[in-house]
Amino acid sequence: MLITNIGELTTNVPAGDDRSGTLKDAAILIEDGRIAWVGRAAEAPVHPDTVDARGHAVIPGFVDSHSHLIFAGDRADEFEARMTGVPYAAGGIRRTVTATRAASDDDLRARLADHVAEAARQGTTTLEVKTGYGLTVHDEERGARIAAEVTPEVTYLGAHVVPAEYADARDEYVDLVTGPMLRAAAPHAKYIDVFCERGAFTADEARRVLAAGIAAGLIPRMHGNQLGPGEGVQVAVEMGAASVDHCTYLSDEDVAALAGSDTVATLLPGVEFSTRHPYPDARRLIDAGATVAIACDCNPGSCYTNSMPLMVALAVREMRMTPAEAVWAATAGGARALRRDDIGVIAPGKRADLVMLDAPTRVHLAYRPGVPIIERVYKDGIRVA
Amino acid sequence: MLITNIGELTTNVPAGDDRSGTLKDAAILIEDGRIAWVGRAAEAPVHPDTVDARGHAVIPGFVDSHSHLIFAGDRADEFEARMTGVPYAAGGIRRTVTATRAASDDDLRARLADHVAEAARQGTTTLEVKTGYGLTVHDEERGARIAAEVTPEVTYLGAHVVPAEYADARDEYVDLVTGPMLRAAAPHAKYIDVFCERGAFTADEARRVLAAGIAAGLIPRMHGNQLGPGEGVQVAVEMGAASVDHCTYLSDEDVAALAGSDTVATLLPGVEFSTRHPYPDARRLIDAGATVAIACDCNPGSCYTNSMPLMVALAVREMRMTPAEAVWAATAGGARALRRDDIGVIAPGKRADLVMLDAPTRVHLAYRPGVPIIERVYKDGIRVA
Repeated sequence: MLITNIGELTTNVPAGDDRSGTLKDAAILIEDGRIAWVGRAAEAPVHPDTVDARGHAVIPGFVDSHSHLIFAGDRADEFEARMTGVPYAAGGIRRTVTATRAASDDDLRARLADHVAEAARQGTTTLEVKTGYGLTVHDEERGARIAAEVTPEVTYLGAHVVPAEYADARDEYVDLVTGPMLRAAAPHAKYIDVFCERGAFTADEARRVLAAGIAAGLIPRMHGNQLGPGEGVQVAVEMGAASVDHCTYLSDEDVAALAGSDTVATLLPGVEFSTRHPYPDARRLIDAGATVAIACDCNPGSCYTNSMPLMVALAVREMRMTPAEAVWAATAGGARALRRDDIGVIAPGKRADLVMLDAPTRVHLAYRPGVPIIERVYKDGIRVA
Repeated sequence: MLITNIGELTTNVPAGDDRSGTLKDAAILIEDGRIAWVGRAAEAPVHPDTVDARGHAVIPGFVDSHSHLIFAGDRADEFEARMTGVPYAAGGIRRTVTATRAASDDDLRARLADHVAEAARQGTTTLEVKTGYGLTVHDEERGARIAAEVTPEVTYLGAHVVPAEYADARDEYVDLVTGPMLRAAAPHAKYIDVFCERGAFTADEARRVLAAGIAAGLIPRMHGNQLGPGEGVQVAVEMGAASVDHCTYLSDEDVAALAGSDTVATLLPGVEFSTRHPYPDARRLIDAGATVAIACDCNPGSCYTNSMPLMVALAVREMRMTPAEAVWAATAGGARALRRDDIGVIAPGKRADLVMLDAPTRVHLAYRPGVPIIERVYKDGIRVA
């Protein structure tokens, strides 16, 4: 298939100062689900199956590297209360744990499928999915297993929060997470994650969890520095995590550690939107040389949105990223956070994961906030929305 | 047609303390484009044409009472520059004026149709459209005429900004706006509007403009107090305007004047989102007893979004309105701002303008920001999205 007459193509193949690798009047040739050729429309080969982009913009498919979509229940009431002033606390997670444990496999599977389809309609072609609302060997295993049915990007997050029944036995819970629960979930997972935060897990507990995951062949990632300063970033970098997510409260040492590592700083501005917390300082990270991704963190508690276009708009409005930086972070940045080199870039050999916008430029993702301007979505060269 | 199994129905018919008139497990009977009956699903008549809402929420169609959709051109580059720190100034309007004057009738018509369809997909069933990028007798007349082809809610806004060619002859321009231009546009319009702001028109000029419009049979409305304190609100109330829009900078006297009048305070939070200005203080207005509407202000300069769902989310996140207040303001509030009593309310005799959400409650409009949860849209009982 040939997509031609692309008004503005964001390749993410750096060209001089333009890290977005922007081409005007471009075309893309797709063969067997991969990009076969990228270039000027005037130089494109003739192809019987040609899509005319009518001057619209094309970007890589969004890589949403952070979601919590194995869950049941709804916390709209808690959101409503929070908006009138009740503060967000990590403890609310336990409410979803109760609902998730009570749900059938088919209920979890159906909800996940709905969320994946909803995300695809918004341009997401790669979606990471975490467990973390099961918190028993059985429930974490089934969460990872059900997630693995729809995405290879599965994260085992037994260390999301200490469940109520272990409130007085934290060490036993960490033993469980790093022992039988890990053994049950790991065959279905690619990553291990831990919520290193006051109210969740300490730095030492986080080290134990990640070390056990690494030993089981999983790639480490981290929730850290969301609700206040802490050791999350330092532990993440020390353990070689692919990404440390949230990064709202960072010291100069945290920023320097990120800049000097290949651990991605994944910012989740939907959380700050939905909890009325201050936004992370993206400029400080970018200016220091850290690699920044943005993702949705879709979950029923702190942020129930899976809209990568809104994340781009929030990154621009609230975190002072340029539209080009925000789109890069939502595509190539997400790919780095997932240690993937076959997505997030439009270049020969890469997967044909593409989004055509109903707009002449990617700037419209921020210029037209909330408006559904995702026109067509291709994953592995196949139209999915 | 019967819509049944509605999990949560927002009628906007006050019931005790609940101004939203919320019904659970409800049904709506529609006949000849009007609401014929509203009540409990268990008590609904049997009907051959029944839609099962599957427990989802239904709200009145959004009434977007403020848009500027007669325009050509795109100012994405100006938006991008603004996000890096270039301040918003009303003068940018003149750039769109140049592009609009150069556009053909068919180009303006096609763009308007695209915007109307895009808004409908987002749940907007009534859309006000302003002129104001023509600023000649010919261009204002054709703007009003083309707008009237798609909506009865047409506003003549010759007094949007003083065009460049009258920069040294303001009085002459006001003479034109209140004379030949008004006579040309008025047959196609329902309202007259003026941008009373530093950089646009003074309070005395605004009085002249609105008085001339009233004499020509138009209903007055006003852009006021957007970029700084001013006399806009006072002039609007004094002239009996249906609405004064923006209301970002208000004195105590302004708030009292609004509370003591039937002039609606229409807040446009998409503008503050897209210009990084402070949001209006909705709580102050509501607590004082003013009637508050929210609308999009879709225009290519200060706010290029027509997403009423995002306006609800911003009203909750940034203006501390409850979800119920925000939905009321986006439906019944908009209807009041347009002096319409046949829309914005779901009750027998009203127009069957309805939105079914892919969600169990209206709270999801704020709880799921950016996510396209508009499932079905009916206007006059006919499905339009």
